[in-house]
Amino acid sequence: MNGFERPSAAAVAAVTRELADALGDRCSANETVRRQHAHTLTWGENQPPDCVVVPRDAREVVRVVQLCAARRVPVIPYGTGTSLEGHVNAPFGGVCVDTSLMNRLVAVHAEDLDCVVEPGVTRKALNEQLRDTGLFFPIDPGADASLGGMVSTRASGTNAVRYGTMKDNVLALEVVTASGEIVRTGRRAKKSSAGYDLARLFVGAEGTLGIVTQITLRLHGVPEAISAGVCPFPTVRAACDATIATIQSGLPVARIELLDALQVKAANLYSKLGLPETPLLLVEFHGTDAGVREQAGRFGEIAADFSGGPFEWATKPEDRARLWQARHDSYWAAVGLRPGAKAVATDICVPISRLADCVGETQRDIAATGLVAPIVGHVGDGNFHVSILVDMDDAAEVARTEKFLERLVARGLAMEGTCTGEHGIGQLKRKYMASEHSPATLAAMRAIKQALDPLGVMNPGKIL
Amino acid sequence: MNGFERPSAAAVAAVTRELADALGDRCSANETVRRQHAHTLTWGENQPPDCVVVPRDAREVVRVVQLCAARRVPVIPYGTGTSLEGHVNAPFGGVCVDTSLMNRLVAVHAEDLDCVVEPGVTRKALNEQLRDTGLFFPIDPGADASLGGMVSTRASGTNAVRYGTMKDNVLALEVVTASGEIVRTGRRAKKSSAGYDLARLFVGAEGTLGIVTQITLRLHGVPEAISAGVCPFPTVRAACDATIATIQSGLPVARIELLDALQVKAANLYSKLGLPETPLLLVEFHGTDAGVREQAGRFGEIAADFSGGPFEWATKPEDRARLWQARHDSYWAAVGLRPGAKAVATDICVPISRLADCVGETQRDIAATGLVAPIVGHVGDGNFHVSILVDMDDAAEVARTEKFLERLVARGLAMEGTCTGEHGIGQLKRKYMASEHSPATLAAMRAIKQALDPLGVMNPGKIL
Repeated sequence: MNGFERPSAAAVAAVTRELADALGDRCSANETVRRQHAHTLTWGENQPPDCVVVPRDAREVVRVVQLCAARRVPVIPYGTGTSLEGHVNAPFGGVCVDTSLMNRLVAVHAEDLDCVVEPGVTRKALNEQLRDTGLFFPIDPGADASLGGMVSTRASGTNAVRYGTMKDNVLALEVVTASGEIVRTGRRAKKSSAGYDLARLFVGAEGTLGIVTQITLRLHGVPEAISAGVCPFPTVRAACDATIATIQSGLPVARIELLDALQVKAANLYSKLGLPETPLLLVEFHGTDAGVREQAGRFGEIAADFSGGPFEWATKPEDRARLWQARHDSYWAAVGLRPGAKAVATDICVPISRLADCVGETQRDIAATGLVAPIVGHVGDGNFHVSILVDMDDAAEVARTEKFLERLVARGLAMEGTCTGEHGIGQLKRKYMASEHSPATLAAMRAIKQALDPLGVMNPGKIL
Repeated sequence: MNGFERPSAAAVAAVTRELADALGDRCSANETVRRQHAHTLTWGENQPPDCVVVPRDAREVVRVVQLCAARRVPVIPYGTGTSLEGHVNAPFGGVCVDTSLMNRLVAVHAEDLDCVVEPGVTRKALNEQLRDTGLFFPIDPGADASLGGMVSTRASGTNAVRYGTMKDNVLALEVVTASGEIVRTGRRAKKSSAGYDLARLFVGAEGTLGIVTQITLRLHGVPEAISAGVCPFPTVRAACDATIATIQSGLPVARIELLDALQVKAANLYSKLGLPETPLLLVEFHGTDAGVREQAGRFGEIAADFSGGPFEWATKPEDRARLWQARHDSYWAAVGLRPGAKAVATDICVPISRLADCVGETQRDIAATGLVAPIVGHVGDGNFHVSILVDMDDAAEVARTEKFLERLVARGLAMEGTCTGEHGIGQLKRKYMASEHSPATLAAMRAIKQALDPLGVMNPGKIL
């Protein structure tokens, strides 16, 4: 928030003392702990909070927020620290609220296809606990992120093309707002027209409007049949064009992921896959046995129309799991391509018809700029990632990378896309907000921030 | 908004004069026109605005809002007047903004499965204009409502079980806010994490935060194969239980609608259908030829498990159209059951597991209260409607109906449902907001209203 000022050392010391009184050893001002709770991924600066608290429940979160608000000390929510745009940094200092102890699966309503979780539950832990219910939660960012963090960044992942993003899979939220009150928004009914959709407002607000303390999530039935496969293409453009045709044909593909040749090479090295090092689509179909067969057949035909193939199946669950694990490890695989380099992971999203153009122009830009930067993407949504491996000691390369990122965003926006499909704004993409949104739109966002957090203590320096 | 005061006669006269200067004969203070633009359906009072304007574009809407705001005169947006909870009434007088001339299909991006429309386009007009594209817009409230109105009530309808509601099918909005500024929120990318989700905030805000002047909608491919059918059940409970089992099994039914025996009788009378007068499910499947056959077979098995059947197909498009037209005409069919009575149409929505209980208890309540009140429902979403036919000259019956409605909402809320799944709050359900939402939640909604409309001129007396 513009105009927010770092609290005085006395205010911080007083809050830290009060929090230690309230939470005992679940409040720490240890230097290492503090640095671990600030931004650690990609190239942003590490800006540690003044202390880290680990509340056990919403009541304790209320207490923390009240103490901080009383002295205008920032409150920064923290899940697993896997966000990529500096969301968990503390540029004005303040108190990091680590939600890792709020990790209970509160209820599973299998008959209603929903569940209630605390924010510290991670996506893998949730699916582990759902294993016997025949249900699963599909949203899967690369990291094993916490669901609170996934709510806050409006996360998506590989299944979003079929199951939607966090926006579509949150039924209700409990949020502690800056006033220290608990706001519950939404109920367990599948839809409602009863007033403003506050749940959707908190989804993607990156902790700037409050701290999520409970989440009611939609679940989905584990499909009767799943089939996944790999399809090589001669060029990235051919793979993108096949993706566009697949989506436009209405084929209900569950996942359709692009890896460019460099990312395949990285995955082969990191995950020992032995895949052909050309652009690939990883696809998956969910349905009945017959339905999955039919979908796969149609996809094979579309791929062939764009010179793709052969389309090879991973029929065994363990092969499938290995394939998708490799996809989820693409960030770490990319890091392995250039030891010692920092990986700058970015994402943009464009209308699907512009995908091939956008990826193609970006690849040419990468080559012209002389960067090592594999591309992977949730291409069914028009969303793709570039992981740029930067030698942080080479100032000229850092500068070139910064200019490249600016061109990437400008390219996406010029194609009616967005500067981030799923990573969020955090600190590092704030500079693009004025390009993506009009002054009136930004003014409306600021007015809402001011209305719900008049002191500006909730995660200041993010989004706006 | 609490505390809003009716503007002085002088202020209203001045605004009316200024609007007439600006819009010529597209500004009317004619008594009949005014009354036609206030609440006309169900039993709410007709509270006409002071004048009605018919702007041609967003620029004119900005002018109208600026003139009204300057004199603190209310602005009430109007689509087709088919909302059911008094959304278009003018309890404080003011200016009705009729969007019927803003009825252009601005763009169709078939390759991206989206289109851009003005708010006065109706859902049928849109689908008519999309006919040659192979795409359609699925959201279908009973009336041929305007898309601006559908955005504003967060409408859904029979296809929502498969395609979602307006919340899920709006990509971006252009909204004129109380300050007379144009806010654009969202772009054409299928997803974004770039800041607050203002689009979802305006969806369902019932014009209390601004007037929608342009809408970017997601479209869907017309399915290769559609099959629809009618399945009778011995009891409403059996039909609900079959619905629950269908949803829980993950069968991707496109529509699954309940009509109770009384509604079937009404439909037979109104639409000359000749259906068996028992509880019925109307179902529809979308997919490939093989997929649709498979889904229908599975549904038939589920129905039989609950003593339903025989499941009869309407294979011809004209039979299917007649069936769904009858479903959409259910409000008018209900009205026909008791000539001279007023139809009070209400809706609630509960978690699917509670559907059979909720409908069953409601039917017993209807019988015990001595009401004529057929039930229809988008039961796949746990959402159902009761149309109560009330003799408005019988004060005791009116009072009994009011008590019945209160019990219906209390029943839905006790089952973790909502007081409205799709009709919205308007004026008539405001009294339930405090039962559905906590004081902190309502305070957050009021803070947002205050932030975006500090003078309270946007559709006052609605929602909050």
